[in-house]
Amino acid sequence: MVAPHLPADARDPLTAALREFAPTGPLVEARLAAAIDQAVAHPGKLVRARLVHAAACVHGADPDHALQLAVAIEYFHIASLLLDDLPCMDDAQTRRGLVCAHRVHGEAPAILAALALINRAYALIGFAMAGEPVPVRLAAMGCLDAALGVAGLVGGQAHDLAFARGEGRPREVGRIAAAKTGALFWLAVYFPALLAQPTGVEGRRLKALCTYWGLAFQALDDWGDVIASRLETGKAGGRDAALRRPNLVHALGRAGARRRLARLVDQAGRMVAALEAERPAWSYLGQFHREFFVANADRLARNAEVLVAA
Amino acid sequence: MVAPHLPADARDPLTAALREFAPTGPLVEARLAAAIDQAVAHPGKLVRARLVHAAACVHGADPDHALQLAVAIEYFHIASLLLDDLPCMDDAQTRRGLVCAHRVHGEAPAILAALALINRAYALIGFAMAGEPVPVRLAAMGCLDAALGVAGLVGGQAHDLAFARGEGRPREVGRIAAAKTGALFWLAVYFPALLAQPTGVEGRRLKALCTYWGLAFQALDDWGDVIASRLETGKAGGRDAALRRPNLVHALGRAGARRRLARLVDQAGRMVAALEAERPAWSYLGQFHREFFVANADRLARNAEVLVAA
Repeated sequence: MVAPHLPADARDPLTAALREFAPTGPLVEARLAAAIDQAVAHPGKLVRARLVHAAACVHGADPDHALQLAVAIEYFHIASLLLDDLPCMDDAQTRRGLVCAHRVHGEAPAILAALALINRAYALIGFAMAGEPVPVRLAAMGCLDAALGVAGLVGGQAHDLAFARGEGRPREVGRIAAAKTGALFWLAVYFPALLAQPTGVEGRRLKALCTYWGLAFQALDDWGDVIASRLETGKAGGRDAALRRPNLVHALGRAGARRRLARLVDQAGRMVAALEAERPAWSYLGQFHREFFVANADRLARNAEVLVAA
Repeated sequence: MVAPHLPADARDPLTAALREFAPTGPLVEARLAAAIDQAVAHPGKLVRARLVHAAACVHGADPDHALQLAVAIEYFHIASLLLDDLPCMDDAQTRRGLVCAHRVHGEAPAILAALALINRAYALIGFAMAGEPVPVRLAAMGCLDAALGVAGLVGGQAHDLAFARGEGRPREVGRIAAAKTGALFWLAVYFPALLAQPTGVEGRRLKALCTYWGLAFQALDDWGDVIASRLETGKAGGRDAALRRPNLVHALGRAGARRRLARLVDQAGRMVAALEAERPAWSYLGQFHREFFVANADRLARNAEVLVAA
């Protein structure tokens, strides 16, 4: 028995935009259309999309363009989940409280849905950034290439699968987490920050922040895998151990993993403070740090359950 | 026994660029790196890449940018082949005279290799077009979205797979061929033509040309499937019938399919002539039409074997 997430609130502009910009239409083949619809109609908590939207608005993007950029980054994320769940990857049964797309609509429609979303994401970014200066657009393309390609999401997933065949050393766990989850923060934080044309110092701090947040997010997700029930995360619990996937709690033990998380949140907090001191425009990063990372680390320290928004 | 294609000529700038721009590096996971390497080291005849390169050079692109655009379009094509060959799609055994990537390196590495190539293709296009005027870039993004997404390559593949479960009517065969192969000509012809900022009339003629060429190319490919031996195409012959995939020769019979091809080549020829009359810059299209389509249709009329460059 699987408890589906509550229906997404259609009045929320981001939730509505996720469906509005989706690649659909009357001529789309039925299974492909159904796979895309399932993917965009049941988003998670949209953590990354909200970060992108807040950043783009603060950095002066047109409201429509801010929505397009936020939806594009979420489409990349949704596509990576569709593919990660495939039998040849994680062979997942459920995702966000629903039976996985490839198990409902077929493997080919799930793969094609992921491609359609990636393709539409690039188009949305191209439209939203068309009026940006050349250096901003070049930096944005470099960021997407680094975050999505062999140095980022795609490469991290390949290492993740290879890990399942090799040795589970903590060093490797960290490297894989940095590539995969770090890449998603590169997209959610560094990418929209490029609209503000960050200075060299700001750019380095933003990149460091993405690394710390990525590792901290992965650590929270690993805790979630270990302790949370299927009902609460919408994912089957304890899969990492079953699949021999890298998991920080398994690698370092509970006390070690807790210390590691506290140190990462602390390091991220110092980066955020330095950025906020540089320009008040970065304060949305401080707000997210406190509301998400500090709050979740506190819950964990009190032995409460972690609420990870995947 | 499978005869591999001859090693690609590394002195050819396009062949060299295909490897040079590939998403690789010492930190890339071994199976993923091997899958990417196999895909870019054994290109076909690079029909589309040569068209894009010729167009970009004629329309005034910087030589490096012309190479980047040509390689990008070829990467989209290679990625679509990697995915089409998967067990959940066409379940192919060989491609271009080699055992398919997913059978050598695994399904997950093949899927991830396709994603890495798509991602790199968008980056190459972003870099190569960074200096183009806003209307050219917006039109280019619209073209990519239409050609690659649910209205193009991805949507065509979904219909193609659905066809295998339904009825094989000629009308449907044409529609599927238009979506899939037409989309690749949109990328190879219409996309680089945007650099020349075509007039409304030229734009409509270019789009019609892509449709005719796409259908004619698919017709030649269908003949190839029916008559060519495995040795000559590097693909297993007669797969369409075995897989119940749409094939014009099966749908219309040999005589009907031959007449259909002749009519398509004739229609394309009239579009090309009209374009050449408009601006001498379009003469590279006329050259390709004569060297590829007219020549292959003539061979077929003489009952000789068709040389399709897939």
